[in-house]
Amino acid sequence: MPGREGDTKVGKMIIAEFSIIPIGTKTTAVGKYVQAALKELEKQSSIRAKPEAMGTIIEAENLGDIFKAVEKAHNSLFGLGIKRVVTEIKIDDRRDKEATIESKTQALQ
Amino acid sequence: MPGREGDTKVGKMIIAEFSIIPIGTKTTAVGKYVQAALKELEKQSSIRAKPEAMGTIIEAENLGDIFKAVEKAHNSLFGLGIKRVVTEIKIDDRRDKEATIESKTQALQ
Amino acid sequence: MPGREGDTKVGKMIIAEFSIIPIGTKTTAVGKYVQAALKELEKQSSIRAKPEAMGTIIEAENLGDIFKAVEKAHNSLFGLGIKRVVTEIKIDDRRDKEATIESKTQALQ
Amino acid sequence: MPGREGDTKVGKMIIAEFSIIPIGTKTTAVGKYVQAALKELEKQSSIRAKPEAMGTIIEAENLGDIFKAVEKAHNSLFGLGIKRVVTEIKIDDRRDKEATIESKTQALQ
Repeated sequence: MPGREGDTKVGKMIIAEFSIIPIGTKTTAVGKYVQAALKELEKQSSIRAKPEAMGTIIEAENLGDIFKAVEKAHNSLFGLGIKRVVTEIKIDDRRDKEATIESKTQALQ
Repeated sequence: MPGREGDTKVGKMIIAEFSIIPIGTKTTAVGKYVQAALKELEKQSSIRAKPEAMGTIIEAENLGDIFKAVEKAHNSLFGLGIKRVVTEIKIDDRRDKEATIESKTQALQ
Repeated sequence: MPGREGDTKVGKMIIAEFSIIPIGTKTTAVGKYVQAALKELEKQSSIRAKPEAMGTIIEAENLGDIFKAVEKAHNSLFGLGIKRVVTEIKIDDRRDKEATIESKTQALQ
Repeated sequence: MPGREGDTKVGKMIIAEFSIIPIGTKTTAVGKYVQAALKELEKQSSIRAKPEAMGTIIEAENLGDIFKAVEKAHNSLFGLGIKRVVTEIKIDDRRDKEATIESKTQALQ
């Protein structure tokens, strides 16, 4: 994310989790679809995306950037021939303290 | 939703579920916050919102309308003094068949 | 649920939401699998199950009864030839006030 | 987890994600409650728990072990004076292939 590191002020970040399931895939191996969605997320310079075992963690400065990125990721599966997609987004928006993916994870260790 | 009833063609609908939790509320009774979010959803003419016990079901013609409505609902809680909000959206987007809140529920009965 | 109706004291109820997605189904029409899971939930006398558009609402007196019912519902899909299942449970456990599916929904209307 | 490493047969693992939100905490800083739940998960020798920014990933051989661990984690918050807890579990149960937290994450990189 441009200007994040080395800045004195980072600003509040919204942390979200995104997951996507294609339905009607014949096979249980849906990795190529999840990767396509992830690739779309990673193209968006306004967010930071970190893949995890059960979903992708997204960090962004505002909700609009998250939704714009998720919409592109979600729609990318229809371009691959999928006819039904279940997408989930969980947003943790804290306005009284700065938080990043790292600070939230470290706070638990 | 304008033009939905009485039309011969309804078009594909996306069904989603929205839920919101305010964090740091002193009390366990968060109904007034959930109601404020719901009121914002109901103001949006581009979606249909139906409250349930564990979330609100949303029906809309496209994802952008859902995200626009959810963003307003989510942000409304900060206007009420809440400093941290966890919002979840689950989207079931099926492009090969028309579906509504009613058709999906009836199919299970 | 034994002793629920007609009693003067109902006791605290836990409200939960259950949803299930079979992966690798060839078709986008997964209703028969969702119905099989729902049928298992409805067999369990220790919980009450109410199907909605995006999931099934469960009401029970304790968490163990919910997990026992969900495990049976989840496993029923493997008996139908499904090889991968994604199941979600969201539990709202409030110990300072009685709540039912109806009271939670009515509070929002 | 006993016997996991160095064995020739690991067996199928179920991957799940757990998250917990205490309601009515006065403060937005709920880390101490999340840590208490995590501590309970880590006490359970039948599962493996890995904290992430938006939830804890659990790996176990069967669903019963996951539910037993989650129930203890969920209940631990009431012991700390919390009166309402929202817990979520998402289970990815794949029976046709071995999967671990690491294999699922690596497949996306």
